Amino acid sequence: MEIKSYKSEYEYSYTLGAFPTIELIQKKKEQVVKILFHSSFQNEEVIRDITNLIGENKIIVADKLIEKLSKKENVYVLGIFLKYKSSLSKEEDHLVLDNPSNMGNLGTIMRSSLGFGIKDIAIIRPGVDMFDPKVIRSSMGSIFSLNVEYFDSIEDYQKVFPKHKLLKFMLQAKKSVRDEPFNEHPLSLVFGNEATGINHKYLDEDSLIIRHSKAIDSLNITNAVSIALFEYSEKNHQY
Amino acid sequence: MEIKSYKSEYEYSYTLGAFPTIELIQKKKEQVVKILFHSSFQNEEVIRDITNLIGENKIIVADKLIEKLSKKENVYVLGIFLKYKSSLSKEEDHLVLDNPSNMGNLGTIMRSSLGFGIKDIAIIRPGVDMFDPKVIRSSMGSIFSLNVEYFDSIEDYQKVFPKHKLLKFMLQAKKSVRDEPFNEHPLSLVFGNEATGINHKYLDEDSLIIRHSKAIDSLNITNAVSIALFEYSEKNHQY
Repeated sequence: MEIKSYKSEYEYSYTLGAFPTIELIQKKKEQVVKILFHSSFQNEEVIRDITNLIGENKIIVADKLIEKLSKKENVYVLGIFLKYKSSLSKEEDHLVLDNPSNMGNLGTIMRSSLGFGIKDIAIIRPGVDMFDPKVIRSSMGSIFSLNVEYFDSIEDYQKVFPKHKLLKFMLQAKKSVRDEPFNEHPLSLVFGNEATGINHKYLDEDSLIIRHSKAIDSLNITNAVSIALFEYSEKNHQY
Repeated sequence: MEIKSYKSEYEYSYTLGAFPTIELIQKKKEQVVKILFHSSFQNEEVIRDITNLIGENKIIVADKLIEKLSKKENVYVLGIFLKYKSSLSKEEDHLVLDNPSNMGNLGTIMRSSLGFGIKDIAIIRPGVDMFDPKVIRSSMGSIFSLNVEYFDSIEDYQKVFPKHKLLKFMLQAKKSVRDEPFNEHPLSLVFGNEATGINHKYLDEDSLIIRHSKAIDSLNITNAVSIALFEYSEKNHQY
């Protein structure tokens, strides 16, 4: 199996760096093809931990391949894995992202979503490729603890999950996220594309707004999602 | 005045794109040196608005300079300005960032800070250069509505602002941000560097935590700051 710089059509992807690679091995061990070390990597503890977790026969030293795949960033550990499909739970609460267009943002949102207790994420197409190494990296490996599933439209998503109550975050909404109890489950927190937001036709009494001053037009999408998730979490969990 | 790709030691910097350029003109008109348009820019409304705001004598068409400064990103409007100093208010609440190391993060935090009503930001050195075009761009121009001042250390900052109550966001804190009333003013929301956090010596009863699950080690810094600012804003403002 020859490994090349990532393209969406490939059946494999890879983690860059020790932290997401350990997450990969711990959460999706059966998908791991090979773990690559750079010969200049000196952290004996990490080397021992990874070797114990995955076994020596999956580990190779491959300086040139790491340098090629990481595009000269300082990467010393890289994990190649076969991509996989996951399905969202019918009972659990969801996060729904309508056409996320920035890979770093998607990864950062994954990290917050896991941190605030939502493990099921629906992505409405087109949306970026969840397995792009840039997404995995900014997720800090949290992607391997999540179920992520793509849908062609919000309507298609709703057909599969008719019981979920959709709470739509929209700048035109009247109700503050602060006044939403998040107590009707299962529910879905729905966010639009950063540039375009959610289609106006969805505006209703289940639309929510994160209040801010008029000095800015809108919040960064990862910050908006994180604030909503925090509100949700504080009203549902005991961390 | 020959304009080159930005370096920190230069006395000028520039905005990339129409939106931050309009913010520059509206908020710091006296600092504007020149506004550059690309000859392929077709948005008559934006051209007219900018011309009305700044006057024709400050506007030039300069395709090659735009392409050089923007490094081939699709930029059609660029605003060159002289850098300036600003000082923080003694009475208003502050945001304090200890050695922010990522330019995109600093800009994104500026945008949230303005959105949630804190217009005074202290940066503890080293910290990235607030006038780097990457910071300005990710701030969406909100930098021009803020006072930003650098200090050598948290102690130096405290000497200048002895009345400010420091609320320190730390993973080791016991008190939830949710239980903080944010009602003793002036106050400062203090955040550490993403990799290292705030020095443990500052841990006390005014340290706050944003509770999240153990499935992640920490939140992305811009998300953490935005959640804290939102809590602060909901308890102090009526947006």
